[in-house]
Amino acid sequence: MAVKGLGELDQELDGSKVRVGIVHARWNKVIIDNLVQGAKKRLLELNVKEDNIIIESVPGSYELPLASAAMFEKHDVDVVIPIGCLIKGSTMHFEYICDSVTNALMDLQFKIYKPVIFGVLTCLTEEQAEARAGLIPGKMHNHGEDWGAAAVEMVTKYSPHLTKISGNK
Amino acid sequence: MAVKGLGELDQELDGSKVRVGIVHARWNKVIIDNLVQGAKKRLLELNVKEDNIIIESVPGSYELPLASAAMFEKHDVDVVIPIGCLIKGSTMHFEYICDSVTNALMDLQFKIYKPVIFGVLTCLTEEQAEARAGLIPGKMHNHGEDWGAAAVEMVTKYSPHLTKISGNK
Amino acid sequence: MAVKGLGELDQELDGSKVRVGIVHARWNKVIIDNLVQGAKKRLLELNVKEDNIIIESVPGSYELPLASAAMFEKHDVDVVIPIGCLIKGSTMHFEYICDSVTNALMDLQFKIYKPVIFGVLTCLTEEQAEARAGLIPGKMHNHGEDWGAAAVEMVTKYSPHLTKISGNK
Amino acid sequence: MAVKGLGELDQELDGSKVRVGIVHARWNKVIIDNLVQGAKKRLLELNVKEDNIIIESVPGSYELPLASAAMFEKHDVDVVIPIGCLIKGSTMHFEYICDSVTNALMDLQFKIYKPVIFGVLTCLTEEQAEARAGLIPGKMHNHGEDWGAAAVEMVTKYSPHLTKISGNK
Amino acid sequence: MAVKGLGELDQELDGSKVRVGIVHARWNKVIIDNLVQGAKKRLLELNVKEDNIIIESVPGSYELPLASAAMFEKHDVDVVIPIGCLIKGSTMHFEYICDSVTNALMDLQFKIYKPVIFGVLTCLTEEQAEARAGLIPGKMHNHGEDWGAAAVEMVTKYSPHLTKISGNK
Repeated sequence: MAVKGLGELDQELDGSKVRVGIVHARWNKVIIDNLVQGAKKRLLELNVKEDNIIIESVPGSYELPLASAAMFEKHDVDVVIPIGCLIKGSTMHFEYICDSVTNALMDLQFKIYKPVIFGVLTCLTEEQAEARAGLIPGKMHNHGEDWGAAAVEMVTKYSPHLTKISGNK
Repeated sequence: MAVKGLGELDQELDGSKVRVGIVHARWNKVIIDNLVQGAKKRLLELNVKEDNIIIESVPGSYELPLASAAMFEKHDVDVVIPIGCLIKGSTMHFEYICDSVTNALMDLQFKIYKPVIFGVLTCLTEEQAEARAGLIPGKMHNHGEDWGAAAVEMVTKYSPHLTKISGNK
Repeated sequence: MAVKGLGELDQELDGSKVRVGIVHARWNKVIIDNLVQGAKKRLLELNVKEDNIIIESVPGSYELPLASAAMFEKHDVDVVIPIGCLIKGSTMHFEYICDSVTNALMDLQFKIYKPVIFGVLTCLTEEQAEARAGLIPGKMHNHGEDWGAAAVEMVTKYSPHLTKISGNK
Repeated sequence: MAVKGLGELDQELDGSKVRVGIVHARWNKVIIDNLVQGAKKRLLELNVKEDNIIIESVPGSYELPLASAAMFEKHDVDVVIPIGCLIKGSTMHFEYICDSVTNALMDLQFKIYKPVIFGVLTCLTEEQAEARAGLIPGKMHNHGEDWGAAAVEMVTKYSPHLTKISGNK
Repeated sequence: MAVKGLGELDQELDGSKVRVGIVHARWNKVIIDNLVQGAKKRLLELNVKEDNIIIESVPGSYELPLASAAMFEKHDVDVVIPIGCLIKGSTMHFEYICDSVTNALMDLQFKIYKPVIFGVLTCLTEEQAEARAGLIPGKMHNHGEDWGAAAVEMVTKYSPHLTKISGNK
């Protein structure tokens, strides 16, 4: 999607009290590692304490939704950033996994009423994934940074206001 | 979709008691800003008080559904207009985000039994988005206006009649 | 879909005690009006009383599912026929709206355990929609008639047998 | 899908105590009739008593999911075989109905925790449907037979073990 | 999807106390048998006891989700590996079954809060399926092995931490 003029944030973000879980798939290691580092770097810049960033892995992207659900209880985090990198292959595996993972991560938010950031690349080529992981100099920034920023923003703005709807007071 | 003869409204609309939340993504700022202004303009025309229009932002369209859910509690609004502008890029990100966001916004209505207006453009080119934001003179009207009108209409006609099904009396 | 031999109904239908809500979108007025009239005509032929047919409108097809849910409570109807006419345009709006509306109408039946008829045309051209509204002489019949008949049939055959699953006795 | 070596059943099936509901759409009558007869024939071969096979119809495939749900209560059956025949036409009706019906039938199983067999043909041509209904000699077997066998197998193997998850003990 | 550098596991896996259900479809027997054996081999390597691996079959992939749900209660397993092999045919059956099965398996995890591994091949040709079953020497490894490893990993890492969200303590 085009990035023609990203609007400015309407609020200062301070992550000093935010606990973040990152759970990443292990396929396409170089790309994943860079995305995870990008997310972590941005979280630290927003004052998230290193101790409050918990990183775990799962085999592939299909495992991300259930693992994300468990991360909230396992590590008492406020938000989870599931990170995966799906690249189109010759079968239809890509299409069905992308679809079910995207929808399951979205829906998970409405089961736990806590934010789950969408850190999954759905690329047609490896080059597209490398670019979005900030691995091709001069092309694109590391998208993990956006996900780190989104995590702190969503917790700050909306987590305190999801109690009534969730039934947890 | 073709606009061959838009049927007339079957009821007068008065928004003087309606509280509206607008939550918009920040990508594609110029387009988004115009859509938000279009929605606000129409709301004011329908007698919604300026104080009863609360506007917030999230990073991208994926964040709209959870933020929309939270807006109801955070600002005690009757309806939310989530506004985003997705434009097809080279990966499959557009397809999976459009699909999950559209379905999550639709489904959210059946979790809270309050209207959520669909203010997300799903365009193949930037020009298509500009036209729908009313930015290309002589082409199309600002679609934000439709969303503002739909918000007042849905609250007026249906919000009082969604209590039994929701279990909130 | 081909209509090669429509099987005969296995039961007489009598709509004299059935209350029907019709909620229609207002885009593509001529087509919509004819579909609504077709549905109403067939309902009357099946002995539904004119007073028991309640007709309302919403702006577009996206609004149909929530409005359909509300119609049950607002007018104490036994079945709702949501009527819309979506025609493919240049963006991807058609695809995402068709998908989310179809699924939401289907799913609504399992939230309220009452029938919701699928009265939404999903056409690639205006001519296809006109034909299905019975507006092109000698081509197709008005599909609204089918929806009216389906409404009475579903209520007659199944509404009394959806109490246990719904938890309403 | 290719049928290269269908593995053998790992258990004897005895349908003598199984009650089966068949609910079929009425479009494409010849095809539907053959599919229903194929299912019934196989059920009888597996010792299902003729009195324990209840057959009803609905207008089209969209009506199958709600009718299937009602069949369980209306006729106290252990399993439902919804049978429909969708054939691609010129609009997008086929795609949206196929998608929503398939997903609704699948999901219904997790609302009632009883098996619902997938007896819906989703064909691009009438000839494909005829072949799958066993109407083209020497081509394919009547798929209704598979559905009848699947119904007895699923009840036998799994119905007694879906009580805890359903909350019905 | 490309397998460029699979990241290392971040934890030792010991399956000696894990009970695993494998439920497989019977279409495409040779491929399925190899996938099942691959999963079993890997489970044994990870110290899962042979007695703790329960294998059953269903007719086709559509039956996998409900059978997977039942396997948890029928055999008191910690995780289920549903194994199926879908290959594109001439109708649209492949597309609708792949979609509904993938989503139903994903969603099942959030009904029972136990892991369900995605062991379904969604291939365009038989050769693609044979390769992924390890049947074409020198091409690909048997994907069943990955599924066995994922089963033990998900139980070990996340099953103890899905109690609160599931309401089962």
